[in-house]
Amino acid sequence: MSVTAAQGFTASGVAAGIKENGNPDLALVVNTGPRLSAAAVFTSNRVKAAPVLWSEQVLKGGQVSAVVLNSGGANACTGPLGFQDTHATAEKVADVLGHSAGEVAVASTGLIGVRLPMDAVLSGVETAAAALSEHGGEKAAIAIKTTDTVHKTAVAQSPAGWTVGGMAKGAGMLAPGLATMLVVLTTDADLDTAGLDTALRAATRTTFDRIDSDGCMSTNDMVLLMASGASGVTPGAAEFAEAVREVCADLARQLIGDAEGASKDIRIEVVGAATEDDAVEVGRSIARNNLLKCAVHGEDPNWGRVLSAIGTTSADFEPDQLNVAINDVWVCKNGSVGEDRELVDMRYREVRITADLSAGSASAVIWANDLTADYVHENSAYSS
Amino acid sequence: MSVTAAQGFTASGVAAGIKENGNPDLALVVNTGPRLSAAAVFTSNRVKAAPVLWSEQVLKGGQVSAVVLNSGGANACTGPLGFQDTHATAEKVADVLGHSAGEVAVASTGLIGVRLPMDAVLSGVETAAAALSEHGGEKAAIAIKTTDTVHKTAVAQSPAGWTVGGMAKGAGMLAPGLATMLVVLTTDADLDTAGLDTALRAATRTTFDRIDSDGCMSTNDMVLLMASGASGVTPGAAEFAEAVREVCADLARQLIGDAEGASKDIRIEVVGAATEDDAVEVGRSIARNNLLKCAVHGEDPNWGRVLSAIGTTSADFEPDQLNVAINDVWVCKNGSVGEDRELVDMRYREVRITADLSAGSASAVIWANDLTADYVHENSAYSS
Repeated sequence: MSVTAAQGFTASGVAAGIKENGNPDLALVVNTGPRLSAAAVFTSNRVKAAPVLWSEQVLKGGQVSAVVLNSGGANACTGPLGFQDTHATAEKVADVLGHSAGEVAVASTGLIGVRLPMDAVLSGVETAAAALSEHGGEKAAIAIKTTDTVHKTAVAQSPAGWTVGGMAKGAGMLAPGLATMLVVLTTDADLDTAGLDTALRAATRTTFDRIDSDGCMSTNDMVLLMASGASGVTPGAAEFAEAVREVCADLARQLIGDAEGASKDIRIEVVGAATEDDAVEVGRSIARNNLLKCAVHGEDPNWGRVLSAIGTTSADFEPDQLNVAINDVWVCKNGSVGEDRELVDMRYREVRITADLSAGSASAVIWANDLTADYVHENSAYSS
Repeated sequence: MSVTAAQGFTASGVAAGIKENGNPDLALVVNTGPRLSAAAVFTSNRVKAAPVLWSEQVLKGGQVSAVVLNSGGANACTGPLGFQDTHATAEKVADVLGHSAGEVAVASTGLIGVRLPMDAVLSGVETAAAALSEHGGEKAAIAIKTTDTVHKTAVAQSPAGWTVGGMAKGAGMLAPGLATMLVVLTTDADLDTAGLDTALRAATRTTFDRIDSDGCMSTNDMVLLMASGASGVTPGAAEFAEAVREVCADLARQLIGDAEGASKDIRIEVVGAATEDDAVEVGRSIARNNLLKCAVHGEDPNWGRVLSAIGTTSADFEPDQLNVAINDVWVCKNGSVGEDRELVDMRYREVRITADLSAGSASAVIWANDLTADYVHENSAYSS
C-alpha cells in the first residue's frame, strides 16, 4: 500500500549499490497526475543537507512530479560538490521520466559528511525508473530504511473515494524541529498546493513535531505530500486534514516504536498547562531528560526526575502544585510524595507519564523513548 | 586539606545512618571566625529542594557560622514537612554549637521525593559536632559522596598568607544552571560578603556553569563560600577572584572526571563566536548531543554530529563557514569534509573538540562526558 495506495502514483525501490551491504537503497515515487500539486515541511536545523536545500527550491514552485530518495548517505555537509550531486540526481530522474528537473524533489539519509557514489546513484535511477509500478509502494518503503528494523507505511481511506497513503523512515537523530526524517505522503484527492500545505502543517505540528526519541535534530528531515487528483474528488478541508493527521500520527508512532535501541515507548501527556506552548515545552523537557529515560528503561517510577525536568522550563506552574502520574498511578501530588510507587507496573513497552501543571486547561502529548545500553552500542560501535 | 586548609575552620564527616550501606553521610563545616561572611549560588531549577529554600534565606543575612551537609537523601519534593526537617536540622546544629539557626546553612543530596530519617540526622549532628577538627576537611569531603567514586578537594594558597580551599560532590544530574551539586569553599582571607559574592559569581560562571555531564539540572545544587578572616589579610579583588576561580575550575574538572559511567572527558572549545553567549550556547548544544556523546565513547570522530548540534542553535554563523577539529585534526572545513578523519587519535580519556564559528572573536569552553552503557546501567538499575 504505502505511497501507491492512492490512485495516480507509481513507485519502486531498488538496490543501487550505495549501501555497502547490498540492501535496497534507492526509491522513486512518481505522480502520474492529472495534478502535480505538492507541499512539504523541512528540518529547521540550520545545517541543512544538499537535498533539503534543493527540494526547498523545488517546492517553491508548488509542483512535484517525482521524488527520488536514497538511503546509505545523507549528502549533508558535502559543500558545493554535494549540491551538484543532488542537482545531477534530479536531472537524471527528469531525463529518464521526461519531466522537468525543477519538479523533482530529492531526499537522502545516512552518514553526514560523505559524498554519494554518484555512479551508483545515477544508474540506480535508471533501474528504479524501469521498475516503477502501481504496486511499488512497499518496495519504496523498504529502500529508504537505514537503521530501521522494519519499514513503515500507513493509509487512510475516505468513503468518498479518496485516499491518503504514506511511508516513513527514521530510527535515530529523531527530534524533529519541523518535520522528521524522510516521509512521503500521497493522495489522489483533488487539491491545490495551498490546500495540501494547510493540512500538512496542521498534521505535522501535532505528530512528527511531537516525537523526540533522542533529542537530536537531523540535517535531512523532510515530509513531502503529493496530490495526483486522480480520484476526481475534492474533500472538505477539515476532513482531508484529519486524514493527513491520522496517517502522520500512525507513521510517527511507528518511528517511536522502532527507535534505535529503545525498549520502551514513553507517552508524555502534559495537562493543566496555561498554554499549549507551555505543555509542549514541559513535555519536551521530560522527553529529553537522560536520567528519566534511564529510569524508565529500568522500570523505576522515578518521579523526582520528572519534577527536576519540569523545573528547568519557563512554563507557568507552582512547584507545590505539580502532580505526576506514571501509568495512571499519581506518584506525585502537590509537588511531593503521592500514591505508593510500588503500585506502578512498568513491565509493558508503552509507559504513560502524565504531568499536571495545575495552571490552566491546555495540554499536549509528546512521544519519546527510553535510553538503553543498546542505543549507546548502536551509536558508538560504528558511524551512522 | 579541603575546607580546613584555610585557617578559622573546623570540619567533620560521620556515618549517621542515613545511607543504608553504613557509609559516611553527614558532614559539618564550622567557621570559627573572627569573620562569618559568606556568599552562595544556588540551582536555577525552579523545583528547589528544602535545603536550598532554607539556605537561600540564610544567605540573605550574609553570615554563615556553619553548614551541615548530608548525602543519602536530597530532601527535594518533600513538601512542607521536608522543609520542617531542614529547619529542625539547622536548629539542632545551632543548639549543639551555641549558634543562631539563622546562620546555619543546610545542604542535601541523594534520592528526590523521600523524607530524611530525622532521628539519624539529628543524632548524626551531635556525633559530627563532637568530631569537629582543624584536620577534618577530608572526612567531610568523603561524607558528602553519593555515586562519586572519589572525594574531591582543591586548595589555592597565596604567598600573601591566605588560602582558598574547597570540597565538592557530584557524579550525575550534572548540568548546573547556576551552581552545581554540593560545593563548600572556605577562605581565611579577610573579606566581607560583597567581596565574596563578586568573586564567587565570577568564578562559577566560567567553571561549574560550564560543565555539562548529562544535561540534567539538579534540584539541590549549591556552592557556598565562607570567609573566616583568620589570616588577617585582605587580598586584592582580582587576586582573590583568581584564587576562587582556580579552586572552582579544579573541582569542576574533578566532577567531570568522575561522572557516572563516563569513559571520556570532552573539552569543547567554541572559538570565532560573535559573542560569549553564542559560544556557550553552541558548546552546550554539542555537550548535550547524545549521538555525539555515543560517537566519542566509540572513539569515532563523527564531526557530522557536531555540525548537526551546532545547526540547532540560534548563534551567529554561516553553515559553509564552520570548522571543526577533533584532537587538533580539522576534520571539517568550511562546513564540509576537511582533513582525513583517520588522523584522529581518540584513545585517551580526554577528547578535545574545537568548533570555529568564523563569526567573531569570542570563545568559551564547556566540559562534558561521553554517553556509555555504564551510565545507562547506573541510572536504570536502581533509584538515585
